[in-house]
Amino acid sequence: MDKEQLHIMRHSLAHITAAAVRRIWPDAKFGVGPVVDNGFYYDIDLGDTKISEANFPKIEKEIHRIVEYGSSFEKLDMPIDEAIKWAKDNKQPYKEELLNDLKRSGTTAAKDIDASELGLVADGEAVVKDVSFYKNGDFMDLCRGPHVENTKNIGAFKLMRVAGAYWRGKETNPQMQRLYVVAFADQGELDQYLERLEQAKLRDHRRLGRELDIYTTSPLVGVGLPLFTPRGTILRDIMSQYSNQLRIGYGFEKVWTPHITKIDLYKKSGHWDKFGEELFLVTSQETDDKMALKPMNCPHHAQIYAGRPRSYRDLPVRYLETTTDYRDEKTGELGGLDRVRALTQDDSHVFCSPDQVEGEISNLLATARELYGSISMALRVRLSYRDNSDGYLGELALWESAQAQLKAAVIANELDYFEQEGEAAFYGPKIDFMATDAIGREHQVATVQLDFVQPGRFGLQYTDAEGNIQTPLMIHCAILGSIERFLSVFIEHTAGWFPFWAAPEQVRVLTINDTVSDYVSEITTILGSLILNKPVKYNEIRYTVDDRNESLGKKIREATNWKIPVQLIVGQKDKDAREVSVRTQSGEEKVKLDGLADYIKQL
Amino acid sequence: MDKEQLHIMRHSLAHITAAAVRRIWPDAKFGVGPVVDNGFYYDIDLGDTKISEANFPKIEKEIHRIVEYGSSFEKLDMPIDEAIKWAKDNKQPYKEELLNDLKRSGTTAAKDIDASELGLVADGEAVVKDVSFYKNGDFMDLCRGPHVENTKNIGAFKLMRVAGAYWRGKETNPQMQRLYVVAFADQGELDQYLERLEQAKLRDHRRLGRELDIYTTSPLVGVGLPLFTPRGTILRDIMSQYSNQLRIGYGFEKVWTPHITKIDLYKKSGHWDKFGEELFLVTSQETDDKMALKPMNCPHHAQIYAGRPRSYRDLPVRYLETTTDYRDEKTGELGGLDRVRALTQDDSHVFCSPDQVEGEISNLLATARELYGSISMALRVRLSYRDNSDGYLGELALWESAQAQLKAAVIANELDYFEQEGEAAFYGPKIDFMATDAIGREHQVATVQLDFVQPGRFGLQYTDAEGNIQTPLMIHCAILGSIERFLSVFIEHTAGWFPFWAAPEQVRVLTINDTVSDYVSEITTILGSLILNKPVKYNEIRYTVDDRNESLGKKIREATNWKIPVQLIVGQKDKDAREVSVRTQSGEEKVKLDGLADYIKQL
Repeated sequence: MDKEQLHIMRHSLAHITAAAVRRIWPDAKFGVGPVVDNGFYYDIDLGDTKISEANFPKIEKEIHRIVEYGSSFEKLDMPIDEAIKWAKDNKQPYKEELLNDLKRSGTTAAKDIDASELGLVADGEAVVKDVSFYKNGDFMDLCRGPHVENTKNIGAFKLMRVAGAYWRGKETNPQMQRLYVVAFADQGELDQYLERLEQAKLRDHRRLGRELDIYTTSPLVGVGLPLFTPRGTILRDIMSQYSNQLRIGYGFEKVWTPHITKIDLYKKSGHWDKFGEELFLVTSQETDDKMALKPMNCPHHAQIYAGRPRSYRDLPVRYLETTTDYRDEKTGELGGLDRVRALTQDDSHVFCSPDQVEGEISNLLATARELYGSISMALRVRLSYRDNSDGYLGELALWESAQAQLKAAVIANELDYFEQEGEAAFYGPKIDFMATDAIGREHQVATVQLDFVQPGRFGLQYTDAEGNIQTPLMIHCAILGSIERFLSVFIEHTAGWFPFWAAPEQVRVLTINDTVSDYVSEITTILGSLILNKPVKYNEIRYTVDDRNESLGKKIREATNWKIPVQLIVGQKDKDAREVSVRTQSGEEKVKLDGLADYIKQL
Repeated sequence: MDKEQLHIMRHSLAHITAAAVRRIWPDAKFGVGPVVDNGFYYDIDLGDTKISEANFPKIEKEIHRIVEYGSSFEKLDMPIDEAIKWAKDNKQPYKEELLNDLKRSGTTAAKDIDASELGLVADGEAVVKDVSFYKNGDFMDLCRGPHVENTKNIGAFKLMRVAGAYWRGKETNPQMQRLYVVAFADQGELDQYLERLEQAKLRDHRRLGRELDIYTTSPLVGVGLPLFTPRGTILRDIMSQYSNQLRIGYGFEKVWTPHITKIDLYKKSGHWDKFGEELFLVTSQETDDKMALKPMNCPHHAQIYAGRPRSYRDLPVRYLETTTDYRDEKTGELGGLDRVRALTQDDSHVFCSPDQVEGEISNLLATARELYGSISMALRVRLSYRDNSDGYLGELALWESAQAQLKAAVIANELDYFEQEGEAAFYGPKIDFMATDAIGREHQVATVQLDFVQPGRFGLQYTDAEGNIQTPLMIHCAILGSIERFLSVFIEHTAGWFPFWAAPEQVRVLTINDTVSDYVSEITTILGSLILNKPVKYNEIRYTVDDRNESLGKKIREATNWKIPVQLIVGQKDKDAREVSVRTQSGEEKVKLDGLADYIKQL
């Protein structure tokens, strides 16, 4: 089933769901019922009656009854005033409000509601004359269509949950009940989705973050500001180190900038006009300085570039900084690591001449490919170009050359890609990376952006081979993106079973009894002198010893709950044979002490 | 000469200086002339006449004349009203103002002026009756004394500079001219001081910071917010890595916390009441959250400790974080790296039981000793104890035990120490480290502080061996302190000639001509595979090649200006002999290519 058909099917099911609800609660007043990812929702006002999950079987039964009855969807056109009268007569004040808005202005006015989704046939005309309704069985609803022919053709569905939602999203409006329903072409697809949802729940990084002691939160510190424990900090550090190491190999150098700045910096860069309202403002009590927490690092890095005169021989200048940016997100949108107010970026900026773009981009693509490849995530990129509209800054020839260089670099790196016009930033074209996780979800991760604008705004310069003053280009790139968000993806992708080199605790030695302590010392001496160099350099083995007076079963259970990739079980027999039992996710095997170091190195 | 005698001598010289100034400018009106470090200053109002360095020889000549004449200092007591009349008659409005203040309130009212320094005999009496004057030759000044017996005994001095200063430090008051004079017991000490000053000027980290491209500043970002270039970032990272590496050896684990928090955290910790006015406040435009930039990290770390239940088996819990704190310093006090608004601390916190204090302190002392020893800075520590006054929190027995443990750890570490009562923080005793630099200046660096208070305020707990709930102690420690301030000391201590392992650019290969490029590749292959492990682990050699078509002399000059510790000079003869000329600060020598790696490793 193609996307459009699926959409029609879900939309038709929304009508049927409303009809079912009205059969149970005849006084139900309906808001909107748009199609969303994996299904749709419908906003319903039942007065003081609350829908609960206990009501779901009853509602589902009514839906099935309508489906099985098999009415067709009939379209009726109606003059708008007649439609308003219909809404009033039928005690549908929300529909009435929408129709009045539509009559007045040709749109539903509220930005958050898509008129066409509601079936309001505005279609760009300033004055609306007619609106359309669809009728199935005894239920009629304001709707643009199209619909499936018959209520029988609505695939498989499941009521998921009900939540409060303000009418039109405004806190001063009445609160309605939003009924979420997932719907797919057939039962197989629905089951697959539900299965994935179940898996996702087991992998939920908020749950694993707590269970594996990766991060904590504190109401005293505030929402969206997670604090990272030793285990979580190892993950942060090793991933940032990896992403830095790869770029250092391409000539990047680390820099350091503070987290605050006078807002003058953003007035100059142009960010103040665009994002001024999204910044955390900083007030000095000692001075009149107007400051802000940095939401990005490019303007700071540009200041370092500007700190010395530059010649074409110095280019490309490549700066790298893993640093924390602050964005004033609404607190209601925060939770876990996927959306935070303190986001640490593995950010980098290249300052180069136009002919260096392809080579630099190519290095960054190779970096992203290597990193995501090593954590078994398939990458796909979107080449985001300008279109013919206004509002793009920089010369057209520069754009065309740059877009061609971007594409050439993507092809040279054998990346799966697609192109999209009109998706570029106003200051330059970009490449967005999507990574697919272990349960098939796609996440936007890295990004590489060209910038024709900021260097000019800051007056950045270099002297070319002929002694002329030129303005460099800038290439923004983060490989992990926000490290916090990356970790939310990484935790769910691995379900907490991190690759051996990244695991906070890589090896745990479990003793069977207390006769083996000397032998355990021999083992820890080997572990203590082991250093992994792939994929991250100078990675000392992180190990612990569990020699408590507890049963081996309990020790194994605990080590497995902690998702420790390598468990070394040591008893008297192992000591006598000078070997250890190595327990990993793929099973258990005996390894000679002599070969332990090599065994671990190849993991 | 002891400190007190030196003070009297400098104070007497202030009188003589004023007398000399009045001989040249009879209308001079005098403010105050207190003794300060290395000498004294005198605030003088000459109306429109400006004192310049060109006048210094003339003033010095008059001073010498008074000194050689050899008058004695005579004391005169005078009722205060008579003194006020004297000031009026002699057109000394500033003295008159001070006397009136003194008469009214028994003090000079202005906090910034020490009455006793002025010779005003308030001495705690509410009403002042008499004041004393000292007369030498034809000059008389309000003064408490004591003085040297005769103007002949004033040692050696030098007029240094003159600067504007508002009367009593208030911008709305008249601006006076502040004449700075340095004075020592004899010419030898003065010369030594001037020589050190000259050396300090050559080592000035602001100058070297620019010349060696260590950091930059930007008016768009703001004062007190330096930005670190690649070279400066290497210095930051390697020193932080070193200080972390030593503590990780003692079981510390890295954590990560955001730079902002709700102020609730500081209300709970008690910092809000004490330091609330020194914080940068953070305003959310999306929410009503009241937030601040963190000025220290202990409350954040305490939240991580609080994130899980803890048992005595888990103690000591040791957290380590190199992170940036923000303090709202007055902008006038900012400049260079010694005082900044963004200060990065190599901070750590131990949570432990009372009997673990000595062992933990001992590890931290060993860390500081090793780090400062390896950069050739002698350490001396102050043991800061409580006295018998009120205002210290925590039980007396705990204090006494803790102070004894601190001292035992200092002695066990063979540190040069002195003890000072009344210097403890209100929450616990501490150890402050002073490091002496290459030109004999002492800088306060690391600190180790015990804290009996914060764990209780945050309700931190652990279960002891008997199953009882206990409150842990906290040990705060930074080894470098503020990394920015440490770097200001480190740059001036080394004059930019950093130890080999820390130098941003360690090795530069200088070619004599272009016939040696293959041979240079052989050399860089050796350098590229070299890793230093002392004192900082996994330290890859940072090298460059200067193969420009320039004279060797120019190349050496440039490499030396960059203070690159190892310069490898390579010509055809070196290639033929398979050796290199190694140029370091201690001279030049030939080293066989085969032995180059070992040669560099032992540097």
